[in-house]
Amino acid sequence: MKKWEENIRKVSPYVPGEQPQTGDVIKLNTNENPYPPSPGVYEAYCAVDFGRFGLYPDPVSGDLVRALEKYYGLREGQVFVGVGSDDVLSIAFQTFFNSDRPILFPDVTYSFYPVWAAMYRIPYECPPLDENFRIRPKDYRRENGGVVIANPNAPTSIGLARGQMEEILRANQDVIVIADEAYVDFGGETVLPLLDRYENLLVVRTYSKSRALAGMRIGFAMGNERLIQALGDVKESINSYPMTRASVPVGVASLEDEEYFREHLRMVMDTRAWSKGQLEKRGFQVMESQANFLFARHPEMSGEYLFEQLRERKIFVRHFSGERIKEYLRITIGTDAQMERLMAALDEIIPDLF
Amino acid sequence: MKKWEENIRKVSPYVPGEQPQTGDVIKLNTNENPYPPSPGVYEAYCAVDFGRFGLYPDPVSGDLVRALEKYYGLREGQVFVGVGSDDVLSIAFQTFFNSDRPILFPDVTYSFYPVWAAMYRIPYECPPLDENFRIRPKDYRRENGGVVIANPNAPTSIGLARGQMEEILRANQDVIVIADEAYVDFGGETVLPLLDRYENLLVVRTYSKSRALAGMRIGFAMGNERLIQALGDVKESINSYPMTRASVPVGVASLEDEEYFREHLRMVMDTRAWSKGQLEKRGFQVMESQANFLFARHPEMSGEYLFEQLRERKIFVRHFSGERIKEYLRITIGTDAQMERLMAALDEIIPDLF
Repeated sequence: MKKWEENIRKVSPYVPGEQPQTGDVIKLNTNENPYPPSPGVYEAYCAVDFGRFGLYPDPVSGDLVRALEKYYGLREGQVFVGVGSDDVLSIAFQTFFNSDRPILFPDVTYSFYPVWAAMYRIPYECPPLDENFRIRPKDYRRENGGVVIANPNAPTSIGLARGQMEEILRANQDVIVIADEAYVDFGGETVLPLLDRYENLLVVRTYSKSRALAGMRIGFAMGNERLIQALGDVKESINSYPMTRASVPVGVASLEDEEYFREHLRMVMDTRAWSKGQLEKRGFQVMESQANFLFARHPEMSGEYLFEQLRERKIFVRHFSGERIKEYLRITIGTDAQMERLMAALDEIIPDLF
Repeated sequence: MKKWEENIRKVSPYVPGEQPQTGDVIKLNTNENPYPPSPGVYEAYCAVDFGRFGLYPDPVSGDLVRALEKYYGLREGQVFVGVGSDDVLSIAFQTFFNSDRPILFPDVTYSFYPVWAAMYRIPYECPPLDENFRIRPKDYRRENGGVVIANPNAPTSIGLARGQMEEILRANQDVIVIADEAYVDFGGETVLPLLDRYENLLVVRTYSKSRALAGMRIGFAMGNERLIQALGDVKESINSYPMTRASVPVGVASLEDEEYFREHLRMVMDTRAWSKGQLEKRGFQVMESQANFLFARHPEMSGEYLFEQLRERKIFVRHFSGERIKEYLRITIGTDAQMERLMAALDEIIPDLF
């Protein structure tokens, strides 16, 4: 090792799902939305003033912040936006988790949490999900430096009821509790109504799932003004201008077509119900999903084998190697046509005798 | 203070130049380019496939990385891209400056450097510029954990010759040396030809100045493959998908119209020469600029007074409160028409007797 290499940071990066850049695969591996965003989003994208591309964007993305505050009925100063919810969560970890005590998140959850914790040298502990892959609120009653709950959880797809989240909040009023609601629009129960009761609650959302805008990188956090201000200060210590001139109007426009939004959520949820039934017909055990994906295992076939077999047929699903979940597949809900092709492929892969 | 507030990170954020969101001001305060990017950039922006907005972008922005490698005659694996050079520099600070020894950068330079150092708890020391606001290479011969040189420097606008940069590199072969070349296209001397000789050299550039794309947030770093890999690993520990689907093709398109690029650099440099003469006629002392801005003081009038007077006339320039530079204005080069209006305003502000 050369001398200059000695001080290079050693990290264990997050490994995102494969992003094939060609169009000829069925991509059910990164929980994207199979539909385009509303037509108004495209209009807003095209209406961006080319003559101002050379100017820095508004550092606080004021138009988008105000639109979100209005949409969610919040006060001024209750929203922070970032480059996807990963950016928001990364900044939140740096902003709020500066205790010597470990932060808590489940053993099976979004696998970026331990990566950020390691990156920012935050101690952490992972209470295990119960045998049905459910979060047990009582596990979050011990001393800690903060709590992060993905609700609905990933990759399990299972949500906690608001009352259970409140149980966690009640037990943790001296630290920041992050509710990562990336998937909540697909049938989860949000803790937004608890914001006024718990000043230490931060709700994080993304445009990448329900709003079909993963390509434009928009995420946001909602909380009391003190938390939002603290996020803003840390953001201004990292990058003054994280959002492009395109992202902000696109994010605003997405909020303006509620009918399109609701209709396409419904389509994803309908396809989810159909897909769950179809998988069960083929012998899969499928968790009750409140997200835009299904978490499923086949009792007779290994997760890795199914993953590889589907991949050979150009159908990408997600497979994790973690001990507790390695027999499972995480399958994003695609269009009806895509899910039909998935089922046809499974019919080839799974022998008749099952 | 509430208990949950105790572990909130305390920071002293960077304060960016004002970004008025209305169009009726002359904005010479954040070193943007007064011209739009080339027409091909707009075509590329509009050609982005709306049907794929819902899909995550390529995590490594491969198209843009390859285009930059080709443009600069580099090998595969020598370019890293990020959300403006601030994002790239922020990640570079985290990746490379993990020593107990202080990193070194000048006392008068880009004011984000001390902010990142504080944010990431990196010790630092600031050798003072000489009395002519020049960097003295011999100041960088002491023990350190890394070196950061903005070349040309900001806000002074003064560049170092390649030989002087090499003097710094020769003395610092055991740490990473970052050459922040944000302004180099406006007449500075790049250290790119030294990349093969110094494996510990990282050159950072931005699309926000010479490429007139501050609004689309694109920056990049060039260096040997080991450094670029390390940046990528840290980036994957923060945010898998920092670049939007719009930024990447826009960044590629900008590289494809070299004639437009050269012509508009020349326009900025011509206006700079004219503006420097005009300021000097009005009694200003103006530094020899290799950047798209001028750093100037009037021996008879305070920097703050001039700043305020211009601001009242809706002409925004940048004023810093640091002791050594508080009598100076940093004036971005605008269009000829904008600079003429600046001179007319100065004629009002500066009494005849000078």
